[in-house]
Amino acid sequence: MKDLIILKIGGSVFACKDSDKPKIDQKALERICREIGNAHSKIKEKSSLIIVHGAGSYGHLIVKRTGIDKGIKNNEDLLALAETQRLQNELNLIVTKELAKNGIPAFPFQSSDHAVMSAGALKSMSVDAIAGMLKIGLTPVAYGVPAYDEKQGCSILSGDQIAPYLAQHLKTKKIIHATDVDGVYTADPKMDRNAKLIPEITSKNFDKIKAGLSGSVSTDVTGGMLKKVTGLIALTEKGAESQIINGTRIGFVEKALLGEVFGTTIRR
Amino acid sequence: MKDLIILKIGGSVFACKDSDKPKIDQKALERICREIGNAHSKIKEKSSLIIVHGAGSYGHLIVKRTGIDKGIKNNEDLLALAETQRLQNELNLIVTKELAKNGIPAFPFQSSDHAVMSAGALKSMSVDAIAGMLKIGLTPVAYGVPAYDEKQGCSILSGDQIAPYLAQHLKTKKIIHATDVDGVYTADPKMDRNAKLIPEITSKNFDKIKAGLSGSVSTDVTGGMLKKVTGLIALTEKGAESQIINGTRIGFVEKALLGEVFGTTIRR
Repeated sequence: MKDLIILKIGGSVFACKDSDKPKIDQKALERICREIGNAHSKIKEKSSLIIVHGAGSYGHLIVKRTGIDKGIKNNEDLLALAETQRLQNELNLIVTKELAKNGIPAFPFQSSDHAVMSAGALKSMSVDAIAGMLKIGLTPVAYGVPAYDEKQGCSILSGDQIAPYLAQHLKTKKIIHATDVDGVYTADPKMDRNAKLIPEITSKNFDKIKAGLSGSVSTDVTGGMLKKVTGLIALTEKGAESQIINGTRIGFVEKALLGEVFGTTIRR
Repeated sequence: MKDLIILKIGGSVFACKDSDKPKIDQKALERICREIGNAHSKIKEKSSLIIVHGAGSYGHLIVKRTGIDKGIKNNEDLLALAETQRLQNELNLIVTKELAKNGIPAFPFQSSDHAVMSAGALKSMSVDAIAGMLKIGLTPVAYGVPAYDEKQGCSILSGDQIAPYLAQHLKTKKIIHATDVDGVYTADPKMDRNAKLIPEITSKNFDKIKAGLSGSVSTDVTGGMLKKVTGLIALTEKGAESQIINGTRIGFVEKALLGEVFGTTIRR
């Protein structure tokens, strides 16, 4: 059986997080997809790949504007919820088509048509089909979506929730988080010039590190670095190692997929 | 609790089944969506709605060309499989956007990210999320897709399989099949001038009718009328009544959603 690698690409890397309208950084998207294609052609005999991408300007703007992450109040919210999903499907088509150009059998994976949330947390999601897709050699491409929430009507199922859920329910070797920072720092590197990169986090040093990880700076309805690392620490118990890297740097996604160690590694 | 109506719209009604490239009959799509919008505004307090649409020229061509309905043989098939799914998502976006213009909170429902097939038959699919979507008032819009098949790698999960599966697993009052014929005939009305419309089919008269239903004429990888009616007969045992109508005729979809009886009714 092949190893499973889950690559999470933050919206900040290619989907213009700070734009005031849905926008793609086409150059960044093409580069990332080329890097994934290069790596995939070398590792595909021994590794399966799931890609999970964030929404950036395709998600955060409409969610902030409509407040659907807090639930449904009226018919307008319902229309906004459906519109948000359609917008994410558009983004996913752009991403999967670019991946296909680079030889990846990129199969859209919507998540929200089978996921059930509860007060903003992912309660259940089916993994039978995705396990089968991996078996035949497809590369499923999941993405942040609005989803049914049994407590509040709907909430946001982010890529940062989907990736660890899949890692937990499918035997996963490694999760690579491509973000717009070089890894986890002792403080927010965008705010604090003295922030230092932490090369390795384990359950032993995590408590000391926590204080500095007070969430990422830019607009992000899905929560920041603390939430991300907390989830990844829990996954090490299941045998899945994580690596947080800077996906905006040329070649870093490719190198990480090929197994090079840099950025921040989170292991047992 | 609201009644559930499932509306299946055949690809032949709006997606140019006989075109030699993926093509939408824009005028037909706009009319159908307007009719659904008109009906939805009148019935939404008492009825939930699921829409399932076929693929027409968006599906049959690529499937015939690549043979992915018979499974996966090589890397090219894998790329074709992923491309087929992306093409269906494009079609679904066109349909859901047109529905949204008519006031429908049309939420894409991909099916293939949780469905498991076995030798071409739908084995399992998650209905937890769709039940929740209906509860909050969304209109899920499912569509024919290529899906993982545990026996042959992949196969086609058609709208004609999705609709009865959902009907069986969600308490359903009525399934409306909008096709390009006026209902079920004693023989194929496109081939035989003496074919007569059958207004009502029950398990009692079905055996006599079977002989005439030897499958629809035009290119269709999903099987013809016989398969459709056989499935609908089985559903009457679950309390779900079906109606087969001509969706190419102006006003027929709207009238059927409003409860008018015409075409062929399949009941217990």
